[in-house]
Amino acid sequence: MTAPAVNPFGPGHHVLADFWDVDASCDIIAIETALRMAALASAATVVDIRLHGFGENAGITGVALLAESHISIHTWPEISFVALDIFMCGSCNPDNALDVLRKFFKPKREAIVSHLRGLPPPHV
Amino acid sequence: MTAPAVNPFGPGHHVLADFWDVDASCDIIAIETALRMAALASAATVVDIRLHGFGENAGITGVALLAESHISIHTWPEISFVALDIFMCGSCNPDNALDVLRKFFKPKREAIVSHLRGLPPPHV
Repeated sequence: MTAPAVNPFGPGHHVLADFWDVDASCDIIAIETALRMAALASAATVVDIRLHGFGENAGITGVALLAESHISIHTWPEISFVALDIFMCGSCNPDNALDVLRKFFKPKREAIVSHLRGLPPPHV
Repeated sequence: MTAPAVNPFGPGHHVLADFWDVDASCDIIAIETALRMAALASAATVVDIRLHGFGENAGITGVALLAESHISIHTWPEISFVALDIFMCGSCNPDNALDVLRKFFKPKREAIVSHLRGLPPPHV
């Protein structure tokens, strides 16, 4: 994916990534490591990471809270699906984090959308 | 905003909300309460809430981690801007949470986009 143009007005880029046909049964420690590597690749600062597992062979829900916003992850191993969103402000590029997570999950299929957040408000 | 049709294939709805012309200097306790009320309005289960403030008159970055995914919040008081995203799976309707947060922040202007996550993968 090509990064959208830098938003000259404000806050940042928000990427939503649906990964299909992945092995989403990874353990929480491996996912935490992947999130830290993803943040590092985007030169983002991890404030905290919270991951919650729903039990053996079940999904996880979690987030890496960043000084520059967040990376969230929610997994559905039963349908081989992972939903990620990566929101980064400032000069951090979420595409770099996405590349790390793509290499980690190795999706055979994916759907990516990207938004510029904080564009000038409507009706101005 | 009208909720998109229910995604019959999977995970859920993801709403990105940019709120402009808001008083974004609310304290963390007030924001935590608003997030809990927003989750409750959508019948979502709060697993954890993590909020990080960057100092007096500065923004906060945070998330309510839900059993049904998450609500994130990032504020920029200096430009009267708040970025929210609300991702909920199952029968939870993120529009209900959005309504609570709209009443809390009272944006004069807003930009909302909504995505169905977990649609059938491309190339199938």
